[in-house]
Amino acid sequence: MRFKDLDIISMKDFSRDMIDHILDTAEKLEPIAKNEEKSDILNGKILAVLFFEPSTRTRMSFETAIKRLNGDVLSLGAVDASSITKGENLADTIRVIEGYADGIVLRHPKEGSAKMAAEMTTIPVINAGDGAGHHPTQTFLDLYTMRRESRLDGVKIAIAGDLKYGRTVHSLCYALSHYNAEITLVSPKDLRMPREIIRDLKNRGIEVKQTDSMEDAIQDVDVLYVTRIQKERFPDPAEYQRVSTSLQVTNELLKNANPDLKIMHPLPRVNEIDSGVDFTSHACYFKQSFYGVPVRMALLSLIMGCVE
Amino acid sequence: MRFKDLDIISMKDFSRDMIDHILDTAEKLEPIAKNEEKSDILNGKILAVLFFEPSTRTRMSFETAIKRLNGDVLSLGAVDASSITKGENLADTIRVIEGYADGIVLRHPKEGSAKMAAEMTTIPVINAGDGAGHHPTQTFLDLYTMRRESRLDGVKIAIAGDLKYGRTVHSLCYALSHYNAEITLVSPKDLRMPREIIRDLKNRGIEVKQTDSMEDAIQDVDVLYVTRIQKERFPDPAEYQRVSTSLQVTNELLKNANPDLKIMHPLPRVNEIDSGVDFTSHACYFKQSFYGVPVRMALLSLIMGCVE
Amino acid sequence: MRFKDLDIISMKDFSRDMIDHILDTAEKLEPIAKNEEKSDILNGKILAVLFFEPSTRTRMSFETAIKRLNGDVLSLGAVDASSITKGENLADTIRVIEGYADGIVLRHPKEGSAKMAAEMTTIPVINAGDGAGHHPTQTFLDLYTMRRESRLDGVKIAIAGDLKYGRTVHSLCYALSHYNAEITLVSPKDLRMPREIIRDLKNRGIEVKQTDSMEDAIQDVDVLYVTRIQKERFPDPAEYQRVSTSLQVTNELLKNANPDLKIMHPLPRVNEIDSGVDFTSHACYFKQSFYGVPVRMALLSLIMGCVE
Repeated sequence: MRFKDLDIISMKDFSRDMIDHILDTAEKLEPIAKNEEKSDILNGKILAVLFFEPSTRTRMSFETAIKRLNGDVLSLGAVDASSITKGENLADTIRVIEGYADGIVLRHPKEGSAKMAAEMTTIPVINAGDGAGHHPTQTFLDLYTMRRESRLDGVKIAIAGDLKYGRTVHSLCYALSHYNAEITLVSPKDLRMPREIIRDLKNRGIEVKQTDSMEDAIQDVDVLYVTRIQKERFPDPAEYQRVSTSLQVTNELLKNANPDLKIMHPLPRVNEIDSGVDFTSHACYFKQSFYGVPVRMALLSLIMGCVE
Repeated sequence: MRFKDLDIISMKDFSRDMIDHILDTAEKLEPIAKNEEKSDILNGKILAVLFFEPSTRTRMSFETAIKRLNGDVLSLGAVDASSITKGENLADTIRVIEGYADGIVLRHPKEGSAKMAAEMTTIPVINAGDGAGHHPTQTFLDLYTMRRESRLDGVKIAIAGDLKYGRTVHSLCYALSHYNAEITLVSPKDLRMPREIIRDLKNRGIEVKQTDSMEDAIQDVDVLYVTRIQKERFPDPAEYQRVSTSLQVTNELLKNANPDLKIMHPLPRVNEIDSGVDFTSHACYFKQSFYGVPVRMALLSLIMGCVE
Repeated sequence: MRFKDLDIISMKDFSRDMIDHILDTAEKLEPIAKNEEKSDILNGKILAVLFFEPSTRTRMSFETAIKRLNGDVLSLGAVDASSITKGENLADTIRVIEGYADGIVLRHPKEGSAKMAAEMTTIPVINAGDGAGHHPTQTFLDLYTMRRESRLDGVKIAIAGDLKYGRTVHSLCYALSHYNAEITLVSPKDLRMPREIIRDLKNRGIEVKQTDSMEDAIQDVDVLYVTRIQKERFPDPAEYQRVSTSLQVTNELLKNANPDLKIMHPLPRVNEIDSGVDFTSHACYFKQSFYGVPVRMALLSLIMGCVE
């Protein structure tokens, strides 16, 4: 396996061995992420952080990752505050940034933009979300969270919310297919996982169940992964209200849950998880958010050639 | 006294001993603030700078403070350029940031937000202004400026401007009550210091005079502290004009002033102090602004446990 | 020559000896700009980056320059996200920043603002564009690019585009007059170089030709320097279309060009250079953009007194 100069564009490019190596590396770097240890691994490295859409969480997580390793950040800034407004195209921007930085993290509304950027430059590019496309570092941190807080190999997981449009959930399911997961899908009828994805998963030998009842879904799982349902998907606000209430995670719902059940959420949440749940041992979403740091540390160190 | 992990929310939480220790620490760190000496005191530390309202001066002062000590900054960025726009609540933001940083500086329009944030997280929180609430680091730097440029213990001070709504002025008066100050208040009739504050100060043994004449006020003081009067307070623009002119500090006004008089202002100013005053030995407001750096260095070093 | 504390306001302030020394210094620092070597030259230094207009490229280039030398940056942020909106004047801002930083890079829409800023403060100020005024670091990097990629002394150069309003082109021509350049000017009739500049250049012994034909212009030159023509200059969109097409650089145009011809452009481009040209050996504009880094490293190191 060679990670130096590798672009991180889509989970589909990663074998189980590669994923395991990334997660192993993240685990080694975790004490640095917690600032229990100091490190100079990325000293002198500059990461360009190009966010053409707002995403505080992802951006800050990458910035923390490189800064904890003593590297530095070059930020595009708010997009309208840049020469982008003068009409420059992304390809030129990437080739200019190549002269300034040792790696690029790109978030861009256009599907395929990260792949295009990677083709334009010799420095490694990380896709931090390209519209309806991919967001692989979210998936890596999801896998890492299961490994650290529950179990990854053979995990029984219920995934709830908008499974039709939620790109990260599709990516997560494919990744879980490397780990003999048992997947239960919970969604309103109109937001079900696309059939071709379910077929793909079954072809890979993964057991997939579907239900629209949260109570049924969480009977016997290790992990409940909750995602946001966007109001905009529903022409009728009353229907949105009904659906989001029926899927809401509350302490009431969790009364009979497996005591070891861990609840994950990519955040930000709206009201999918009641704040009362935050104080239970089930709540795992803030830890999950933190785990983005060691995972991104691992990715940056590997692709910048500073860790093997 | 134990400062490690202490939240800096309100001046009311600080005894004279604590204030003195902070100012002593600032004085030790001042050569680093001036870049006459280098320091690694906060090496490896990350300060999250969360400004939900613009405040260039305060933000930059904190950033300089941590960078001069070799720590680094994680910035929320312009607020609309963040996932805040997706409707995330402050409590969740704070718990996410906790995974990224070793301390938080928060400015937020809502009174009480800093206190709430501090209760949500185990990392220390500094209140850099919470609406009509508190802004304690401004008060610390005001006290430090008096100590360095005039005198703090027993200082005779005239405070002029909007004394009704100016939160920092109230905070300053309470803090000065630890130092046997003699306070003269100068304000237009409708913007006088609230009676309960004056009563509190007198109960603490502080002499408080009131006047609406700048000439009277500066007869015999060490420090003239000027604050901004906001146009919006006056329904009648002509009345604003009259009031702001009557309180304006000019070289003409200062002709008979104590030669050692020092003029302070939290900045930015509009026209409360004529620019001609800038070149006199009375002008102390740019130094005051600089003193924000050693004072914030001291606070950061103390609460991050890197200085005793 | 003494560079410590020197302000970089206008090319007119620089003799050939000074320019040569800056370019020599840039050449020494180039391996650090490429991250082939590490450096601590500006360790502990803070550069305030005050951009009152967007200019991603220039800002990032300065930030990379100081970060590669282990200094740090203090950013004003997006302008509307600052207390500038409270109406503070530039002079006060500069005097406040003086307390935070060891140098200032200023971009401001008002001509003369950098000079004014430099007069307000004892720390060095670099003009990164002041409206219709100057932008000297662009010129330094242009000269450096010729020196590295073609030749600077005695260079035969064609300069094409808007030569009337393009401030950087005027500055470049004056600078080239130190180097016995032969200059061919290519522009639409209404956007010709002002006569007084041509006269000045001739008085300095520089050969200047004018043409409106790109084909003629590039017959026998080392460098083709292309600049943007702004649509807004043309009341008639059809006229803009005609003009910009007639000056567009394409592989067709370059068929008979000198094989060593280097094409430069300050970027961002719109359609002055067809993207097909990017993959030829003529294309030099992305390298030119990169050369901004060693040049700005040299300037920062010299004026901060960290390199002789």
